[in-house]
Amino acid sequence: MKTLEELQELVGQLFEREEFRFYPDELFEPIEYTLRDGGKRLRPLLLLATAQMMGGELEEAYGGALGIETFHNFTLLHDDLMDESPLRRGKPTVWHRWGTNRAVLSGDTMYAMCWRYFLRREHPRLRELLESFNESAIKVCRGQQLDMNFEQRKDVMLKEYVEMIGDKTAELLSCAMRLGAMYAHKEGTAEERAEEEKVAAAGYAMGLAFQLQDDWLDAYGDSRVFGKPTGQDIRDHKKTYLILRALEDSTPEEKAKMVELYQTPQHSEETIGTLLEAYERLEIKKKTEIEIEKYYGQAQKAMEEIKKSEECKLPLMRIMQGLLGREK
Amino acid sequence: MKTLEELQELVGQLFEREEFRFYPDELFEPIEYTLRDGGKRLRPLLLLATAQMMGGELEEAYGGALGIETFHNFTLLHDDLMDESPLRRGKPTVWHRWGTNRAVLSGDTMYAMCWRYFLRREHPRLRELLESFNESAIKVCRGQQLDMNFEQRKDVMLKEYVEMIGDKTAELLSCAMRLGAMYAHKEGTAEERAEEEKVAAAGYAMGLAFQLQDDWLDAYGDSRVFGKPTGQDIRDHKKTYLILRALEDSTPEEKAKMVELYQTPQHSEETIGTLLEAYERLEIKKKTEIEIEKYYGQAQKAMEEIKKSEECKLPLMRIMQGLLGREK
Repeated sequence: MKTLEELQELVGQLFEREEFRFYPDELFEPIEYTLRDGGKRLRPLLLLATAQMMGGELEEAYGGALGIETFHNFTLLHDDLMDESPLRRGKPTVWHRWGTNRAVLSGDTMYAMCWRYFLRREHPRLRELLESFNESAIKVCRGQQLDMNFEQRKDVMLKEYVEMIGDKTAELLSCAMRLGAMYAHKEGTAEERAEEEKVAAAGYAMGLAFQLQDDWLDAYGDSRVFGKPTGQDIRDHKKTYLILRALEDSTPEEKAKMVELYQTPQHSEETIGTLLEAYERLEIKKKTEIEIEKYYGQAQKAMEEIKKSEECKLPLMRIMQGLLGREK
Repeated sequence: MKTLEELQELVGQLFEREEFRFYPDELFEPIEYTLRDGGKRLRPLLLLATAQMMGGELEEAYGGALGIETFHNFTLLHDDLMDESPLRRGKPTVWHRWGTNRAVLSGDTMYAMCWRYFLRREHPRLRELLESFNESAIKVCRGQQLDMNFEQRKDVMLKEYVEMIGDKTAELLSCAMRLGAMYAHKEGTAEERAEEEKVAAAGYAMGLAFQLQDDWLDAYGDSRVFGKPTGQDIRDHKKTYLILRALEDSTPEEKAKMVELYQTPQHSEETIGTLLEAYERLEIKKKTEIEIEKYYGQAQKAMEEIKKSEECKLPLMRIMQGLLGREK
């Protein structure tokens, strides 16, 4: 049984020993740039921790670990292009550095590379496993489309927002955990499938809690720790749980005022202050915390119901607690 | 045993009865626009004709037929964006009609949809089959990158050009035929694999012949039949077999002159005429025909070596002859 730290080490090694540079350079340079030393590698970590929890051989899940991270990075690469984001992980984004065409095509190629990893090894439930991954991939695309749609709309409802972050963020975290369990469950008995549902539910609820926490941190987090100034989402006119909740909990008059204020092209510190005051009056901080707590509780409950020892669950539990800032 | 016409009918039905419109509309409208009534559907036709030739059950290959056509259309969608082409099959291209972001994301989603089709059904050699498709997909991406690279270069060699069209065009035609054979060959015995190699070789050679013929038609085809004016590739400054062959067969002085002429930003009918005269002097027409004949001969030879009756081979042979304008 590997500790969380050992699993992290293992994920690092998986990517280190992988070759990302093939012919021609123009195609694979952006791929290596993206995948080498890239990010937290949360999804492969979740996948392997879940495979271990369920009693699987880690080695059999390596392809899935590489594949899901490659897919995730492909979506970031194309999202950065669509959102015109200049920076990712402190480095210029691929489209910004190499232009639109290189970003489109190296992204497409990364998507194909993700399948190369997934297909590296046989598995008795391979079709089902790949189908499960692929349906999640389609949902991630849907989430990005909904996110882009919402930017153009003034009347996004809280329910729609949660659906969108579910697709865009929670789905792939859930998928990582479900795939980990599937790699371990070679037969796919009814009992195994029931456990996979619990694992997937835990991942999904954790993903929602994680995204809401991200929204919360923008307004109430320590900007030194969190790395971006307070209220950045407001400055970027981003739809977040906070503003959508504030709008839903307001009277029609308050709401009209807040919509107008939020849309100001260039937010002064004063308008940001006014909006944060409105959040205060409407108790948005506390309401969001309750919501985060709700999803965190759902994730924990699903984890508790999994028929494995505490020891088996420990690395995965620690990832979940770490993600939500609840390290013990 | 189905005739070619019956197979064409079947491919049409496969796409007709498929649903392409899912939630949200913004994502799936461009997908339906692309896949509904779209193109010749050559790849699924090749796939099914090969599956039938090899004695397979057609129904088992439907997912592959839908998948490979969806993949092909995804590459066209993203290629049109990268090449800034305004029209495809007489209709506005997706990026031109809906913008870059919708084109990127609906393309990505089409790529995921292609996997949904491929994964619809179990097959004893599913991993191998998908891997074979995926490696071809990576080569198609490579071909598009090489094509874009060549646009920036003045010194493309004939050998590189043939490699590029091999990746970009021949590979997926070859893949369609190989997959058809694999669907039919459930065991994957050594003998079956040997037959798959022949089929793939036939498809690849046919693809090269087809692309060279496309280049040839631009200069020497009947513009009324072919649908674009003579010399359009020259006007578009496209690298083709004709110009690259002319450059390779010229003296250094002739070559320098021709390169200069070819690069003229706006070709007059006179410069086009001068280039066509140079082709004449260098016998480019005949040399290209010999090359097309060479690849067509390779394709025919590979087909002859396949251990099936003439009757089994007939629909596939007719597709190949039709593609290369040699209907009997």
